[in-house]
Amino acid sequence: MGKSGLSNLALRTVEPPITWLMGMTLARPKLISLAAGFTDSASLPVRETRALLNGLLGSKREGRKALQYGSTAGDPALRRLTARHVAMLDGAQMTRGGIYDPERMFITSGSQQLLYVLSECLCDPGDIVLVEDPTYFVYLGITQSHGLRCRGIRLESDGIDLAALEAVLERLRTQGELSRVKLLYLVTYYQNPTGLSTAWAKKAEALRLLRHYERMAGHPIYLLEDAAYRELRFFGEDIPSALTVPGGRDRVIYGGTFSKPFATGMRVGFGILPEPLLRVVLRVKGNHDFGTSNLLQQLMRVVLDSGEYQRHMEGLRSRYAIKAKAMVRAMRAHFPEGIEWREPTGGLYVWARLPRRVRTGVNSRLFKSALRHDVLYVPGGLCYAEDAARHRPDHEMRISFGGESVPNLRAGVERLGATLKQVMGR
Amino acid sequence: MGKSGLSNLALRTVEPPITWLMGMTLARPKLISLAAGFTDSASLPVRETRALLNGLLGSKREGRKALQYGSTAGDPALRRLTARHVAMLDGAQMTRGGIYDPERMFITSGSQQLLYVLSECLCDPGDIVLVEDPTYFVYLGITQSHGLRCRGIRLESDGIDLAALEAVLERLRTQGELSRVKLLYLVTYYQNPTGLSTAWAKKAEALRLLRHYERMAGHPIYLLEDAAYRELRFFGEDIPSALTVPGGRDRVIYGGTFSKPFATGMRVGFGILPEPLLRVVLRVKGNHDFGTSNLLQQLMRVVLDSGEYQRHMEGLRSRYAIKAKAMVRAMRAHFPEGIEWREPTGGLYVWARLPRRVRTGVNSRLFKSALRHDVLYVPGGLCYAEDAARHRPDHEMRISFGGESVPNLRAGVERLGATLKQVMGR
Repeated sequence: MGKSGLSNLALRTVEPPITWLMGMTLARPKLISLAAGFTDSASLPVRETRALLNGLLGSKREGRKALQYGSTAGDPALRRLTARHVAMLDGAQMTRGGIYDPERMFITSGSQQLLYVLSECLCDPGDIVLVEDPTYFVYLGITQSHGLRCRGIRLESDGIDLAALEAVLERLRTQGELSRVKLLYLVTYYQNPTGLSTAWAKKAEALRLLRHYERMAGHPIYLLEDAAYRELRFFGEDIPSALTVPGGRDRVIYGGTFSKPFATGMRVGFGILPEPLLRVVLRVKGNHDFGTSNLLQQLMRVVLDSGEYQRHMEGLRSRYAIKAKAMVRAMRAHFPEGIEWREPTGGLYVWARLPRRVRTGVNSRLFKSALRHDVLYVPGGLCYAEDAARHRPDHEMRISFGGESVPNLRAGVERLGATLKQVMGR
Repeated sequence: MGKSGLSNLALRTVEPPITWLMGMTLARPKLISLAAGFTDSASLPVRETRALLNGLLGSKREGRKALQYGSTAGDPALRRLTARHVAMLDGAQMTRGGIYDPERMFITSGSQQLLYVLSECLCDPGDIVLVEDPTYFVYLGITQSHGLRCRGIRLESDGIDLAALEAVLERLRTQGELSRVKLLYLVTYYQNPTGLSTAWAKKAEALRLLRHYERMAGHPIYLLEDAAYRELRFFGEDIPSALTVPGGRDRVIYGGTFSKPFATGMRVGFGILPEPLLRVVLRVKGNHDFGTSNLLQQLMRVVLDSGEYQRHMEGLRSRYAIKAKAMVRAMRAHFPEGIEWREPTGGLYVWARLPRRVRTGVNSRLFKSALRHDVLYVPGGLCYAEDAARHRPDHEMRISFGGESVPNLRAGVERLGATLKQVMGR
């Protein structure tokens, strides 16, 4: 405790890059932000939300319910619809007492809250979480704030490298650190930042490895599956979640959200958890807010119940597919040789790998030059955990086709391409 | 860390009484709950909210904004309106760089979130917070979960007993514990649970005492003023907040909410904080949720901007005044001799003091008998912090006229009176 009187948590917590990036955007009105994970503004369901709210608040009974407190776990009808929805995505049945029982679920204020409360409930300072390398940088902010140690697991095109996972667990075992390992965090669909998805077999094998090592850890090691982008799929088939892996019920925490796919201004997410953990998590959620806004929950309930959610998702998928294509086409036209990326099949992001000598960090020549050209990207380095076992890569960038219009995407990529040529072409 | 793999925080955290009380209500459909701090259902502004949302979402520009992410601190226009509102209540001006500068304010998901994030930012396990004796029991849940120690300060009819505050601080000084003291938490208006308000002179003197002792503590000791019920005033004049006390700017944290007065289903609160603390709090809020739902914020903005808030408050005040009167009249008619209470002048609660021999706790004969009579109250003991310096009183109850209709209030009080007579009249 310093003379500030602040807590250890407060003293540790650094400014989240997201605040800084958002501030940057607001400060430069002509800036094209390929950084923000905003959703497409023109496709936001304004008219539909208005009509549904009209219906909801047109009924005195439903209206009063929406404007009154709810319970900490969330509205039972919304939980039932959500559970059914996830079961449907997994090609499974919702049965009482089964994996998709609404009693195993709670509603959160965005999926971010799930990540936060879980970190509080599972981890003490110094504990270890395993993350994809690279991973979602806002999750890294939570781990940083809570004084957790991260171990990055190398990513392959279909998810984490299982040999790397095993090697990390084995090293932790020999170091006597297994008892500090609490979970493996995977963004399994169209990962933020790389856009990659995890194959089902990898989820199954990762879970098997965790169960093997947890015997030596002496406590459960959970697989936290963040499925935030699952439904933003352009091509291909959906992959069943880790909940469907045998034994998944007791070790998989599944986090989802309606914010990203439907409306980011709503902030309604959910978690499906093993029962003993859910009980604890709900106590802590009770202290946070004793329940997510009931108005938002009731709105989300009618969004799902009316079929509007499905309709909206279909439109959104083709819209994002078009935007992704426009971005990739512009990258082909304007990016110099020597930059690698994959065409996205879902989600909001393209991950571009530059030659190793070209740095992308906030203090790099490239980043500053891009800002001067009024274009913003997320430096790849922000997405890598602090991990002494490897050098933090600093030659990548995350660019998003989510927020900006197609003409702006083209213009932004053109500006970025010009910057890249200028910086690389010496 | 036990074999559960849970964090120390999780292992500490007990079930919040609010969850238990809510569950009790749901399980007994005929129960009249005088326990819940729900707001009056019939007066919820369903029609008004509908009309305002129609307007908001009728504009494409405003609608899109409402359905998109906002910033962590909250919508600038809402912060401006909120700051102006609090300045108006305090009879002050909102000036740039002044106490009510919107830049000193952030929007929260209900005022509960403010209490939570502040506890995280200011307190480590073992730290000490000073609270009114009794105090808001959900705040006690947060302190319990974070492993904080509480010291109760005796309450008088116009706020804490200043001599008791000084004695507690002095004792902590001699015990060498001042460096662990972080804040004094006061619910200054129509306190939950007692309904009492704090006189301005007491706020000023409390702040003076804190500043005196903080020199020996070596760090700021804040005055956290929870003004959740400030606007639910039936009679008398408003009291200026502690922000108006000289030096208040640097040491007063002011928490307010729009949920209680307008609609509990909305969950929009706010905090006004000294700048250095606000910076830290925003980092942590960023990790929680990077901003409260923008839809709720934009709705609250138009609620304030349209004048609907003021109109609603006026109606609500007279409505609650009538309900309070009905409850007190029923108490006079049905409660046995020997029970003391004050007629409320605002807020949602009446605090009843029974003879010391009559216990009110959840395991008491009275509580169980009340449940059999299908009426629920909040046992007073829940509102007292764990404090070795005194016996935890167990002969009081909090009853609320907030949620139930007037006929139900009468019937509930009659049932409770019959129970009291039965248990006391031996």
